[in-house]
Amino acid sequence: MTELGVVRRKVKRAERAAVEALGRYGVATVHEAMGRVGLMKPYMRPIYPGALISGTAVTVLLHPGDNWMMHVVGEQIEPGDIVVAAITADCTDGYFGDLLGTSFMARGARGLIIDAGVRDVKTLTEMGFPVWSKCVSAKGTVKSTLGSVNIPVVCAGALVNPGDAIVADDDGVVVVPPEWAMKTAEAAAAREANEGDKRAKLAAGVLGLDMYKMREPLAKAGLKYID
Amino acid sequence: MTELGVVRRKVKRAERAAVEALGRYGVATVHEAMGRVGLMKPYMRPIYPGALISGTAVTVLLHPGDNWMMHVVGEQIEPGDIVVAAITADCTDGYFGDLLGTSFMARGARGLIIDAGVRDVKTLTEMGFPVWSKCVSAKGTVKSTLGSVNIPVVCAGALVNPGDAIVADDDGVVVVPPEWAMKTAEAAAAREANEGDKRAKLAAGVLGLDMYKMREPLAKAGLKYID
Amino acid sequence: MTELGVVRRKVKRAERAAVEALGRYGVATVHEAMGRVGLMKPYMRPIYPGALISGTAVTVLLHPGDNWMMHVVGEQIEPGDIVVAAITADCTDGYFGDLLGTSFMARGARGLIIDAGVRDVKTLTEMGFPVWSKCVSAKGTVKSTLGSVNIPVVCAGALVNPGDAIVADDDGVVVVPPEWAMKTAEAAAAREANEGDKRAKLAAGVLGLDMYKMREPLAKAGLKYID
Amino acid sequence: MTELGVVRRKVKRAERAAVEALGRYGVATVHEAMGRVGLMKPYMRPIYPGALISGTAVTVLLHPGDNWMMHVVGEQIEPGDIVVAAITADCTDGYFGDLLGTSFMARGARGLIIDAGVRDVKTLTEMGFPVWSKCVSAKGTVKSTLGSVNIPVVCAGALVNPGDAIVADDDGVVVVPPEWAMKTAEAAAAREANEGDKRAKLAAGVLGLDMYKMREPLAKAGLKYID
Amino acid sequence: MTELGVVRRKVKRAERAAVEALGRYGVATVHEAMGRVGLMKPYMRPIYPGALISGTAVTVLLHPGDNWMMHVVGEQIEPGDIVVAAITADCTDGYFGDLLGTSFMARGARGLIIDAGVRDVKTLTEMGFPVWSKCVSAKGTVKSTLGSVNIPVVCAGALVNPGDAIVADDDGVVVVPPEWAMKTAEAAAAREANEGDKRAKLAAGVLGLDMYKMREPLAKAGLKYID
Amino acid sequence: MTELGVVRRKVKRAERAAVEALGRYGVATVHEAMGRVGLMKPYMRPIYPGALISGTAVTVLLHPGDNWMMHVVGEQIEPGDIVVAAITADCTDGYFGDLLGTSFMARGARGLIIDAGVRDVKTLTEMGFPVWSKCVSAKGTVKSTLGSVNIPVVCAGALVNPGDAIVADDDGVVVVPPEWAMKTAEAAAAREANEGDKRAKLAAGVLGLDMYKMREPLAKAGLKYID
Repeated sequence: MTELGVVRRKVKRAERAAVEALGRYGVATVHEAMGRVGLMKPYMRPIYPGALISGTAVTVLLHPGDNWMMHVVGEQIEPGDIVVAAITADCTDGYFGDLLGTSFMARGARGLIIDAGVRDVKTLTEMGFPVWSKCVSAKGTVKSTLGSVNIPVVCAGALVNPGDAIVADDDGVVVVPPEWAMKTAEAAAAREANEGDKRAKLAAGVLGLDMYKMREPLAKAGLKYID
Repeated sequence: MTELGVVRRKVKRAERAAVEALGRYGVATVHEAMGRVGLMKPYMRPIYPGALISGTAVTVLLHPGDNWMMHVVGEQIEPGDIVVAAITADCTDGYFGDLLGTSFMARGARGLIIDAGVRDVKTLTEMGFPVWSKCVSAKGTVKSTLGSVNIPVVCAGALVNPGDAIVADDDGVVVVPPEWAMKTAEAAAAREANEGDKRAKLAAGVLGLDMYKMREPLAKAGLKYID
Repeated sequence: MTELGVVRRKVKRAERAAVEALGRYGVATVHEAMGRVGLMKPYMRPIYPGALISGTAVTVLLHPGDNWMMHVVGEQIEPGDIVVAAITADCTDGYFGDLLGTSFMARGARGLIIDAGVRDVKTLTEMGFPVWSKCVSAKGTVKSTLGSVNIPVVCAGALVNPGDAIVADDDGVVVVPPEWAMKTAEAAAAREANEGDKRAKLAAGVLGLDMYKMREPLAKAGLKYID
Repeated sequence: MTELGVVRRKVKRAERAAVEALGRYGVATVHEAMGRVGLMKPYMRPIYPGALISGTAVTVLLHPGDNWMMHVVGEQIEPGDIVVAAITADCTDGYFGDLLGTSFMARGARGLIIDAGVRDVKTLTEMGFPVWSKCVSAKGTVKSTLGSVNIPVVCAGALVNPGDAIVADDDGVVVVPPEWAMKTAEAAAAREANEGDKRAKLAAGVLGLDMYKMREPLAKAGLKYID
Repeated sequence: MTELGVVRRKVKRAERAAVEALGRYGVATVHEAMGRVGLMKPYMRPIYPGALISGTAVTVLLHPGDNWMMHVVGEQIEPGDIVVAAITADCTDGYFGDLLGTSFMARGARGLIIDAGVRDVKTLTEMGFPVWSKCVSAKGTVKSTLGSVNIPVVCAGALVNPGDAIVADDDGVVVVPPEWAMKTAEAAAAREANEGDKRAKLAAGVLGLDMYKMREPLAKAGLKYID
Repeated sequence: MTELGVVRRKVKRAERAAVEALGRYGVATVHEAMGRVGLMKPYMRPIYPGALISGTAVTVLLHPGDNWMMHVVGEQIEPGDIVVAAITADCTDGYFGDLLGTSFMARGARGLIIDAGVRDVKTLTEMGFPVWSKCVSAKGTVKSTLGSVNIPVVCAGALVNPGDAIVADDDGVVVVPPEWAMKTAEAAAAREANEGDKRAKLAAGVLGLDMYKMREPLAKAGLKYID
């Protein structure tokens, strides 16, 4: 339930081994391996290219223009966590900058996913602290209204429970529930296992039409070739 | 006509020499040389900066959330082509990734223009396969409904006929019909011919007001200077 | 007043020393130092990362699809100025490219802030002429209708008077009125003075909760911790 | 969990009495009574003004451009239900029209909440079947891919579990979990109880500043009056 | 081809009988009857509800902020035409108001479809002149740059050739090429012929699942029912 | 200057006679009469159609998610005023409902213009209190941070000074500075004076091309007629 003014301290985190395993694959592979669910909306973009992280979610729900709970969630971070921040209504303010980034890094956070704005992006980039956000904004926030920490939140269209595994890269952000984490990692491994073979064939000029045996179903569906 | 379930195999492509000539100029110059038409909407952005490509369009029309026809269009690619993908309604799904990229590159495609999402952007960047898209999204697609290949499509607000010349760079994407390709390349060359001279004058501090002789028409239009 | 067809030649610019001082701080710091006002909307993005500029505003108001006044404002640029361009209605056209960039640089402009599109971004990047814009677009413009130069304009949601100090970096664009410039620079300096100390503490694992003494006000506001 | 290809038949619905009680209040009152949570995003708009409905959620998750599961969810409707439809990625297609509306009405549905498009809005209006949607679109859909029925979904930014109470009116859509339904209805009643009194005072010219005793806290916060 | 500065006077219009026949069906039915193509984007909305028109397209291409060609297209209107207006780049200006509406009505136009803004909507509503537009805006335009009349245009994502049949209602706008008009009208008639029967069954509580015989294909696709 | 925490009590309002005179014309006419400036962005829409109001601006600047200052501005309303509310960053929350509406009406306000959300729109419509807003949202706000009253604000892209004349109708919202109010009303009267004559001619089938003598300038600009 979305209750305000609450900090849950005990979080059952997804198994570390599964989370690390998921981090070997990109978001697209993990999302496919899960059965094509769990993605955040594509407006979530990294502040710099090339980062690939996996970790366990600590969640925070904030109000428009108010980042007070960012300081509260900081205390709940354990090494290997990723902070996932949702807002009770659409907001582009810059809730997070280099000072909070320094604090979160010191606590062991691997990154931040925030459905709002971030600032000090140049410094955060130099620090190597990756953030996926809706936008970049220098707009400052106040500290006056309570939200919650480690409750289920909807972030960029995806439900995130505290403890969920999160994978984020240049393609976006995907959420994997703890009970799915290991089997998803295995399915991802299986997907990638034969990707090398497929890639080699395609690079040699074999068509997907033939490799995936699509000609018959396409013809059956009525596809006509004309000159 | 927008007919579904059809693959046109024979395409009258814009003349190779004209297409290569167009590729020497940026999109802005080609668009101006054509008389300020033919541009796709500015939401079409490259997945990495610095690419400048020209080629001939093979077109594909797909449905929301369905990339089946991507495999069909692959077979119609000839070296020097650019695939132009349109969707029957707005969709942000990731229709294209590194495997299809490997296949298209092997067929000789110079790039992809897609009015939807793309994924595996890090790998595509490393491969040097340029894509201009509406967004980046890891969202997977199904393969169940027929679209068409090499029919006229509207992509990001621009009409594209199969065989049209396409030029794409950091400024966007422009479409040049075959019968306009050579004269547009010539007009682009003419525009650039005196750009060097203009640039030198402007760099020396000459004002556009004077270089373009605008003072008189501005005064005539009623421009007043006040202190 | 928003009067069309007028060029104001005499502009009382913000004090040079204050403008240079402001340029030592990022946009986020300056915005906070001003009391959290003066920001442009976050859709304004730089064409390349890493630039940090400060300068005095010369303003120009243009019509949709018409960049005639860009040439008029060029003459009003003094070294250290930043051109701020507003449009009478939303427009994404490419009002500005490398030729105008060459001219503005020659006049001593430090950059352009435009609530519309820009083109030739690759060349502008190579030239090192920074632009903050709503979008990138190759779309050309006409030169037929008068706007104004050096009148107050609303650019990306912010009021800009000619002579205002402007600071722009990867976080966005902020506008500082001349009479606030020096005290804002001082307030920014004061903010940064103890940032190093804060950063060191946070990096050592001290929590913001403790450093900012938030525990008591949070408890007073009713925050509950549960397990 | 978001599992695809599943229809849950048994749903524990919010208590009927609580749902009916909630329906006596508008969405704004219910949302405030819940503690300011549970709202869908404001882009969800009714196809005609003036409707106010409450009911219990049956949920359906569909794919972009595919409304097959709309027919599956129809069978799970019980009188007093409201169908809540979410899509696995943003889509504006018209998933629902007057035939499905006729069917849903016959099953006892009180309305539809859909994070996508709806069509036949004139006929649906004449039928008095209210729909809250992201947009109106005549775009047809296919029937080829499985989604799920009565699983938790994220619809327009709000988590909806099957059986949740839903209230919708001209101000939007709010979701109330079963265990909160009765106490929320009571809190809503309490809010409205003294609204009449407040309204009378305000209508008589009493200021909110005085009625809510805000002058002191405002002064304490530093508000200055100047002439 | 998109050539500027041209007015084509002779237009081969879709057969009157076919156009009138199409006008008996709503946009959704016509779009389905065509094979699910030809729709404009759903952001095109009528200025008042309840209108249903069909007619033949006269097209006009205008520049951002410039409505000069609106007067040129007026002369090309024949009774039963619908004016379709496209802009060379996104623009929200109010290109059309009650005076032009009076003129177009006098010429026999049945309505206007414009991918931009419209104004005087109250008066246009009172006059009963329907307009489908991207937005409502009081913003005035200039008259200084040539566009074209009766060339192919892309309007709200749809290709429109002069003479095409247009149908517009509360669900949106659909474009039917002349050679498809009669068979589309027939297909629409066929669709509607058995709609009454279907509607009666659905109203009696028969499920779409059974009426459309979907249970077997759903089971085959793997749908599972759980309690 | 945008100073926070300030309420200016003395406002020099635009002359009553001029404001009333402006209210006789629609927004489009007033905007044209002013020289095509002063409009708010077209996303500002009335909560019900048909209202036409004019009045003098009292302004209020609020923070995202915080409507405290709405109660402060209430006291500054004088009969004939229109409240103009701006937010320091984009926000869709519902800052205003029927209770505040009752209070504002009792103080003599003619309407509200707010660059954010409004709620209780059904009741406000029944009360006949017109609101132009960015959206409708039931989302509640807090009361904890100071903004300002009667300072210059940027609302929906337009600069509004306290005391400015405001005109709003179905076409949008326009802002007229006091010193322009009377001459703008006169110019609007002049525009309308010959509109009746023009309308009669156009209704009789006279073309704008002829009435405005456009044929010669069009030909001069190069317009070609082809068959």
